[in-house]
Amino acid sequence: MTSGTTRYFADHAWLGPLGEGDGLARDVLIEVTGDRFTAVRPDAVRPPDAVQLAGLTLPGLANAHSHAFHRALRGRTHRGGGTFWTWREDMYALAERLTPDSYLALARATYAEMALAGISCVGEFHYLHHAPGGHRYADPNAMTDALVTAAAEAGIRITLLDTCYLTGGPDRPLAGPQLRFGDGDADSWAARAAAYRTPDHARLGAAIHSVRAVPADQLGTVADWAREREAPLHVHLSEQRAENEACLAAHGCTPTELLDRRGALGPRTTAVHATHLTEADIARLGSSRTSVCLTPTTERDLADGIGPAPELARAGSPLTLGSDSNAVIDLLEEARALELDERLRSETRGHWAAADLLAAATAAGHASLGWPDAGRIAPGALADLTTLSLDSVRLAGWQPRTLLESAVFAAASADVSDVVVGGRIIVAEGRHRLLGDVAGELHRAITGPART
Amino acid sequence: MTSGTTRYFADHAWLGPLGEGDGLARDVLIEVTGDRFTAVRPDAVRPPDAVQLAGLTLPGLANAHSHAFHRALRGRTHRGGGTFWTWREDMYALAERLTPDSYLALARATYAEMALAGISCVGEFHYLHHAPGGHRYADPNAMTDALVTAAAEAGIRITLLDTCYLTGGPDRPLAGPQLRFGDGDADSWAARAAAYRTPDHARLGAAIHSVRAVPADQLGTVADWAREREAPLHVHLSEQRAENEACLAAHGCTPTELLDRRGALGPRTTAVHATHLTEADIARLGSSRTSVCLTPTTERDLADGIGPAPELARAGSPLTLGSDSNAVIDLLEEARALELDERLRSETRGHWAAADLLAAATAAGHASLGWPDAGRIAPGALADLTTLSLDSVRLAGWQPRTLLESAVFAAASADVSDVVVGGRIIVAEGRHRLLGDVAGELHRAITGPART
Repeated sequence: MTSGTTRYFADHAWLGPLGEGDGLARDVLIEVTGDRFTAVRPDAVRPPDAVQLAGLTLPGLANAHSHAFHRALRGRTHRGGGTFWTWREDMYALAERLTPDSYLALARATYAEMALAGISCVGEFHYLHHAPGGHRYADPNAMTDALVTAAAEAGIRITLLDTCYLTGGPDRPLAGPQLRFGDGDADSWAARAAAYRTPDHARLGAAIHSVRAVPADQLGTVADWAREREAPLHVHLSEQRAENEACLAAHGCTPTELLDRRGALGPRTTAVHATHLTEADIARLGSSRTSVCLTPTTERDLADGIGPAPELARAGSPLTLGSDSNAVIDLLEEARALELDERLRSETRGHWAAADLLAAATAAGHASLGWPDAGRIAPGALADLTTLSLDSVRLAGWQPRTLLESAVFAAASADVSDVVVGGRIIVAEGRHRLLGDVAGELHRAITGPART
Repeated sequence: MTSGTTRYFADHAWLGPLGEGDGLARDVLIEVTGDRFTAVRPDAVRPPDAVQLAGLTLPGLANAHSHAFHRALRGRTHRGGGTFWTWREDMYALAERLTPDSYLALARATYAEMALAGISCVGEFHYLHHAPGGHRYADPNAMTDALVTAAAEAGIRITLLDTCYLTGGPDRPLAGPQLRFGDGDADSWAARAAAYRTPDHARLGAAIHSVRAVPADQLGTVADWAREREAPLHVHLSEQRAENEACLAAHGCTPTELLDRRGALGPRTTAVHATHLTEADIARLGSSRTSVCLTPTTERDLADGIGPAPELARAGSPLTLGSDSNAVIDLLEEARALELDERLRSETRGHWAAADLLAAATAAGHASLGWPDAGRIAPGALADLTTLSLDSVRLAGWQPRTLLESAVFAAASADVSDVVVGGRIIVAEGRHRLLGDVAGELHRAITGPART
């Protein structure tokens, strides 16, 4: 995106899962030409013209699962304690109101909040395709375009996971607010999705909303679409026990087995949640090298339960992380929650090293979104950097040898000071350089101009 | 602490669990004389001389369970993933090094971090009484005094829970670093504890470290000491399953039953954790009105499991919250974690309203620490205020009718802008007025002056 060469000098840097040892290095000179790293030299002397990155610099974070519009529900779904059903009512009421213009504004501010949190790429699991009642916009991809434009204006990359969402359950047609999600059948979905041309900061992927939302005999259409394009394929999987029960009743097998039979698993597929699995499900996901995206803060919020993440990793599934409902936007919190919730499930500590959790938040996430050349600080990789200031009370007492542990177990989005995406400085000293007052933009997008 | 009358004007205030309806009020004029509220008027007109409190003002938060020195371990106990045992080794190694002077510095900075997080009173569960090897200091309460002084210098109140810690387990004497904890027997503990005279900002309570650490026939001595003084009595209870098994083997009953038999339960008692309980345990705790202190972020960290908090509340136990190991200092995160971890346990949402969770973080906590006159904004109560700014990206999109939900489910310590403790402004615009650079103080206290 930029031309010429820019030099950065990082006091401490984690070079990513491909670095030596734990990947931590000091006094790292980082050269960027265009949107790529061209040189990375630890133990360097700081040149006078280098941009100083004080603190700990990480590769840009990958948010592998987002529903941008859910951001407007943050802090609003708990009245009277809140149930899953009051949450879904609120979410549908919100979905009814959005237009391409208002969604652009909401998503831009939400993605800007992600940029401030050190996220350089988002996987947007997008199903709000059509106008109320299911009517097509003049441009049938107007909502897709709003999201892709929002990411550009917020300064981050996006993988638009165009989601096939056809039914409200086995033999249950879409109704009410759900009509906006539907393309009629998978062929129509495929034709609409294929018509979209992505700009450089975006890639197009496919998604099956869930086995509830795509009839079994049409799952293959979506899987084939992704396979032909070598594009990512994402799918919500077994988030709630009820999904498994309905699938068993309708198809005589688990959702994982159904997806496997229809050719939807594999190294370009990501199963999101994967909470309630059988041992055979775990083996299928692992042996097919299907990635599993955990969204721990959302899984807490929606009372999903705690999935078998260590078993999935041991079986061969790369793990990734997502902010999902955007009730929280903090990939470091998702990373520690993966470990901490497993501690609650197993009553034992020590499932992942900090570097493993950071790998889920970086390289594994980017790869699952179709950007295998992002998520590490190395020559040739996309030049994404996220710097954590070490100056807050949260991180006071950090020591060089345990810096990764501090980042994962003590830091927060609020500690992100600088963010570079594809060679471009998007956040500097905690401020978004393109949009400025992100909180104000968010507040207006959510509450409307009259209330600001 | 101050004389004359000061007036505050809060845009939004939650008056506490004794307020009307959900307790939320607007345009609240708050008058403070000395260390007490003297008038509280919602829907008021702002007088020109009032101190403006923009955002949402809460009563001061109560941190009902802290081990201040554990703060130095934050982010350092996860190497190789970390186990409970590497954590305990690290904790003991740290405990070996502290002196009254160095503990004063560490605790002052830790309590100042608490002040910045909106905490106006801490319950310090203190067992690091003596010099290495168990030798008495010239003043046998030198460590107690260091902690009480630390709280004064950090501007918060403290309940010093002087902890009786006599054995390493049934029939196992203290050894190594544990020797610093021991008073020999409960009578010697009682005599030492009784000799301490508290200044105005402090109260003295008792603690039984656990049924592992105090022989059954000496539990009554500690319980009687607290009863005679009408002082709080706290006890770690059933945090790990191994404690229950050892207690059953040694005494033929659960830890809860043992405490009950020895007269240690009741409305001035707080059981900390209470994770692994029988139905009979829950009934004993509830019917005796024993408070239960949950420390969710520590319970995650130490892989304790998720306790039966809703059942305890229904049985009659007031719930309180603590930062415990201080790996996180954020009472709002503890409050939401109480609800969210229960969602993971039960796979259902909606166990507590936001006001219930805030009551645990305020009035119930203060009462459990022996300050029943704190934790609500009402005439006659201790004048503690914690104001959350609503300006961050975390809270953008807040609405007046769901402000309590936003505070509990979306805010963080970093959103605390102003804190008043006993009528004295301790934090203004996010800055500690007594100590200034709290992060620097913390960093020096933990890493030593040579490394700053």
